[in-house]
Amino acid sequence: MVIRAAVAGASGYAGGEALRLLLAHPEVEIGALTGNSNAGQRLGSLQPHLLPLADRVLQETTAEVLAGHDVVFLALPHGQSAAVAEQLGPDVLVVDMGADFRLKDPADWERFYGSPHAGTWPYGLPELPGARAALEGSKRIAVPGCYPTAVTLALFPAYAAGLAENEAVIVAASGTSGAGKAAKPHLLGSEVMGSMSPYGVGGGHRHTPEMMQNLGGVAGEPVSVSFTPTLAPMPRGILATCTAKARPGVTAESVRTAYEKAFADEPFVHLLPEGQWPATASVYGSNAVQVQVAYDEAAGRIIAISAIDNLTKGTAGGAVQSMNIALGLHESTGLTTIGVAP
Amino acid sequence: MVIRAAVAGASGYAGGEALRLLLAHPEVEIGALTGNSNAGQRLGSLQPHLLPLADRVLQETTAEVLAGHDVVFLALPHGQSAAVAEQLGPDVLVVDMGADFRLKDPADWERFYGSPHAGTWPYGLPELPGARAALEGSKRIAVPGCYPTAVTLALFPAYAAGLAENEAVIVAASGTSGAGKAAKPHLLGSEVMGSMSPYGVGGGHRHTPEMMQNLGGVAGEPVSVSFTPTLAPMPRGILATCTAKARPGVTAESVRTAYEKAFADEPFVHLLPEGQWPATASVYGSNAVQVQVAYDEAAGRIIAISAIDNLTKGTAGGAVQSMNIALGLHESTGLTTIGVAP
Amino acid sequence: MVIRAAVAGASGYAGGEALRLLLAHPEVEIGALTGNSNAGQRLGSLQPHLLPLADRVLQETTAEVLAGHDVVFLALPHGQSAAVAEQLGPDVLVVDMGADFRLKDPADWERFYGSPHAGTWPYGLPELPGARAALEGSKRIAVPGCYPTAVTLALFPAYAAGLAENEAVIVAASGTSGAGKAAKPHLLGSEVMGSMSPYGVGGGHRHTPEMMQNLGGVAGEPVSVSFTPTLAPMPRGILATCTAKARPGVTAESVRTAYEKAFADEPFVHLLPEGQWPATASVYGSNAVQVQVAYDEAAGRIIAISAIDNLTKGTAGGAVQSMNIALGLHESTGLTTIGVAP
Amino acid sequence: MVIRAAVAGASGYAGGEALRLLLAHPEVEIGALTGNSNAGQRLGSLQPHLLPLADRVLQETTAEVLAGHDVVFLALPHGQSAAVAEQLGPDVLVVDMGADFRLKDPADWERFYGSPHAGTWPYGLPELPGARAALEGSKRIAVPGCYPTAVTLALFPAYAAGLAENEAVIVAASGTSGAGKAAKPHLLGSEVMGSMSPYGVGGGHRHTPEMMQNLGGVAGEPVSVSFTPTLAPMPRGILATCTAKARPGVTAESVRTAYEKAFADEPFVHLLPEGQWPATASVYGSNAVQVQVAYDEAAGRIIAISAIDNLTKGTAGGAVQSMNIALGLHESTGLTTIGVAP
Repeated sequence: MVIRAAVAGASGYAGGEALRLLLAHPEVEIGALTGNSNAGQRLGSLQPHLLPLADRVLQETTAEVLAGHDVVFLALPHGQSAAVAEQLGPDVLVVDMGADFRLKDPADWERFYGSPHAGTWPYGLPELPGARAALEGSKRIAVPGCYPTAVTLALFPAYAAGLAENEAVIVAASGTSGAGKAAKPHLLGSEVMGSMSPYGVGGGHRHTPEMMQNLGGVAGEPVSVSFTPTLAPMPRGILATCTAKARPGVTAESVRTAYEKAFADEPFVHLLPEGQWPATASVYGSNAVQVQVAYDEAAGRIIAISAIDNLTKGTAGGAVQSMNIALGLHESTGLTTIGVAP
Repeated sequence: MVIRAAVAGASGYAGGEALRLLLAHPEVEIGALTGNSNAGQRLGSLQPHLLPLADRVLQETTAEVLAGHDVVFLALPHGQSAAVAEQLGPDVLVVDMGADFRLKDPADWERFYGSPHAGTWPYGLPELPGARAALEGSKRIAVPGCYPTAVTLALFPAYAAGLAENEAVIVAASGTSGAGKAAKPHLLGSEVMGSMSPYGVGGGHRHTPEMMQNLGGVAGEPVSVSFTPTLAPMPRGILATCTAKARPGVTAESVRTAYEKAFADEPFVHLLPEGQWPATASVYGSNAVQVQVAYDEAAGRIIAISAIDNLTKGTAGGAVQSMNIALGLHESTGLTTIGVAP
Repeated sequence: MVIRAAVAGASGYAGGEALRLLLAHPEVEIGALTGNSNAGQRLGSLQPHLLPLADRVLQETTAEVLAGHDVVFLALPHGQSAAVAEQLGPDVLVVDMGADFRLKDPADWERFYGSPHAGTWPYGLPELPGARAALEGSKRIAVPGCYPTAVTLALFPAYAAGLAENEAVIVAASGTSGAGKAAKPHLLGSEVMGSMSPYGVGGGHRHTPEMMQNLGGVAGEPVSVSFTPTLAPMPRGILATCTAKARPGVTAESVRTAYEKAFADEPFVHLLPEGQWPATASVYGSNAVQVQVAYDEAAGRIIAISAIDNLTKGTAGGAVQSMNIALGLHESTGLTTIGVAP
Repeated sequence: MVIRAAVAGASGYAGGEALRLLLAHPEVEIGALTGNSNAGQRLGSLQPHLLPLADRVLQETTAEVLAGHDVVFLALPHGQSAAVAEQLGPDVLVVDMGADFRLKDPADWERFYGSPHAGTWPYGLPELPGARAALEGSKRIAVPGCYPTAVTLALFPAYAAGLAENEAVIVAASGTSGAGKAAKPHLLGSEVMGSMSPYGVGGGHRHTPEMMQNLGGVAGEPVSVSFTPTLAPMPRGILATCTAKARPGVTAESVRTAYEKAFADEPFVHLLPEGQWPATASVYGSNAVQVQVAYDEAAGRIIAISAIDNLTKGTAGGAVQSMNIALGLHESTGLTTIGVAP
């Protein structure tokens, strides 16, 4: 089986990571690569780490260029995916690494993005209860946001097991690649090295409704989320520290049991042995997720912490994992659980 | 006026920072420098950034060596300060940068440190209501922990104004110097660069009871604290993200007003203009504190975030500030609010 | 004595560092601050580390705004300083932190900058033989480039003592602030963290003729320079590794003696004890220079290595040091040799 | 074909990287893992990024434990490999990632290591003229040092083509993993972040004779090497800036041609297009080598610059590449030229 894949937005970080992973995928052949402002340039000058593709030249993102592939990965600014997907037709697997099709509630979309809602596609977080079934055979995939991936995997077992009250407080640190490749002064190396800073504080981050959707879906009732993202001086990685008030009767054992059960058969989620805590370096460049959980009896809270690579499991790795499911391949094909460390 | 100051534990990070600041203090003359395992070594080989002291040689930490100074800064492992302080007599100002005299409740001390409680000294966080009065003229100062400094300054205005419920959830990121200069594998540059990781999760960090003591003291009732510290890939800095459930009737305006009032006359705490958020780089090497606060109406929580330099305001700068008060000097003498950036 | 100082280009890294140092200068009062594209903005949003100036607003860079100051620091793009300086008149001390007035040979200027040569001003590297005399009382100062500062201080003693052949090979690593604050994709934190890369290889860097001018001036004959700059994953600092073939008869002792003699009375240059090597962290934020030298007998080369902070001694600190000389102040006024470490 | 491989020294950086690569090698099955001071510990606590091996337990490094494998990788302190290799017998492929068998001249070994020379094994740098033939079918491989790998690949084409005088000047920057995992104060994250510093200056680094051996072998006459290594604030990567005086008649074209010829058929060495320069980030975690070369006519020098990942191509990747040749596999099996970036 040869799956011919195109990547729209190949000059950015999400597109580059998709290519890095697809190059290692045994069933995939890389087809068209597009990037509007960089059309006409060699990939070798834009993504010098993708040596085997150095001499490939970017094309414009048009339906003609993207036609004739089995899978098309979209790494486009939000609001642009729907138009492209429509032109590709219903038989092409379209994997949207942007935000356009993640939210179910049009009102949420409009409040956070200020534009009409494009729709909702099967959600590419296979570990979420019910998600795998929706992905199987699907021709459309909405890849989750990087923060919602880390946060949902850390907290959903507590909600699935009815252990947590419906108020979660989350603080997450992300590497700078999560902010993209557009050159902005506050993202300069001189500014970010040696600095930690928050942004989107007070409920304003666009990933908040996605977390609420995921956790609320598992809990069966709305879950309030206080989410504060911070920018950390590292290129990759998300560390999500997630806490929720424990329901009466919760014990350290019941928490541990719930997490062991949730991840028992997951190929990419590694519940660490007690006493060991996640570190983003351990999952660098891999599709693995490290999770650990504790019950702070004095504070009455469950504390669940996850580490992912925001570009791999948080974006392109999750996309490939979901593509594998959609196409009927083994879910782990072409993906690794081995990080690049130190 | 010439204040003769000694530093015990001059080869470590806290001691080195104390020396860096004391060298810039116009009223201080630096006397004895001690460091047990490094006694006999040139400071130039241990603290090469302290150029004016390069040829000074470390002595053993003994009462004889430390005698005859107006002020003695202690940067010793916990449990050692009491014995030294006793020998120095009641007329010498002893500034303990360790933990020994911070906690009021002996039971707290014993639970977290596993040894008998040494006592309680005036607490060197001048911004905390009531603290300045206790420091004036005192001959003993307990310098706060770095995390409690950042967290208390972020949250106490909310408790002082009665805006917050008594359950705080705190996640803080610290630069690696907070973990000290002892060589441990997990603190190697190869391990920490590119990585974020938590530690002391679930209420186990020794700074938790100190935060509860500070916030509870201001609130007038016990405040529960869920505290998760994380290690960030930077040498210095703490970013503390602190949230608490808002009491009924709280508004964005009432929160803002409470913080403006709390910090109106503080020389080192800078409540940022609305829309600007703290960054540890901005306070690098300075005694300044950046604070910002928001009210997340949807989640019903107050989110207060502070940035400090863990070694300056978080340790040695706070120590010098408190020394100034104790000695009747201007509180800002020898200290700066200007960070070294980028 | 109150020296009223203006800074043109106050929103960039050089201008910001000048302000950081001038704020600590006991004789200076800060006057007008200008910045063309940022005119009208609060400095607090552009340089949040300069807390005491947070509420100052940037003005346009015009002769009217800059008039009425004793000293004007120019941190402008190259080619713009001459016009501003002319309008300020001959009685104002103009300190140009740009390149315009560094080179003596108009042909060098035109070859490397592609525009007409503006002239040559007294050179602000006081440690260079003859430079102090030219700076005393001068109303114009050309601040050296950051690389030429590091390289000249490392190598000139070897040439002054006639120990080195006239071919130097230099490789220097610079922190990213040397590349300025303009947002360019290759300077993003995501790109520079974890990466070392060269640029301007093969003689193309504009600092090369300045190094040749300095070393050749000391040697009394042309000195060929092979210079390769590299970008290092840190915000500040230059480490310059400079080698030159040793002349016959050179010994380790003669090299050491030459360097000891050259720096014996220098307040900012610290020739390290044998066996200790420079580190940029040791001079972070300070005007100090660490130098060490070795004679590699097997390779027949002198190896001299220096560490500076590119923004302090390499730009704004050198500028203030030279200003002090020009104004008849003590050369060290307002400057420190103490680095911020770790 | 299943190749059963053991790794002695599996808890360190070289051993960990060997395991990371062997896990991805389609023909290899991982057998015994040893580590003396860590024997008895789970690999999951020592190398948490190697998720598939998390539950493996380290054994003592003994002949019994290492027996029964097709290949044994040695990542031991220098001086220990010979005794282990002898016990393994002549039919086992022993790949020594240490220094013991790299040097041909016993006098060189004794001068730099102060112990008797163990011998010389086929040299695992396949790109070096003559090396592949010696590796084919060999049962012993001496993996080159990381710096000699980077430097030799950058400079040998110039010597092979007779373009360079026999005096090379080399300055290389290495990530901190090159210094190993032993906890030493100067390798703490707090010390290395934000700092560049040299070490082993003046000919003292043990990799210098290896470079001279390689370049002299290609040149057909002794080549003098001035080598200065520096420590850079990044976990991985070497950037080697190598210059040599050009012989009369050399032109930019002749240099380019020589390099194109040298690397035309090399699967891992990528001579960059003119105008693009190597960056260590581009080869992060990969076995690729980026090389660029320039001729500085004014200085009369050839400047060749290479970037490698010190742990991959510089250690364990080079080891696997050489193993593949020795065993008759395709040289690239299990190795990638795709870096993990950004």
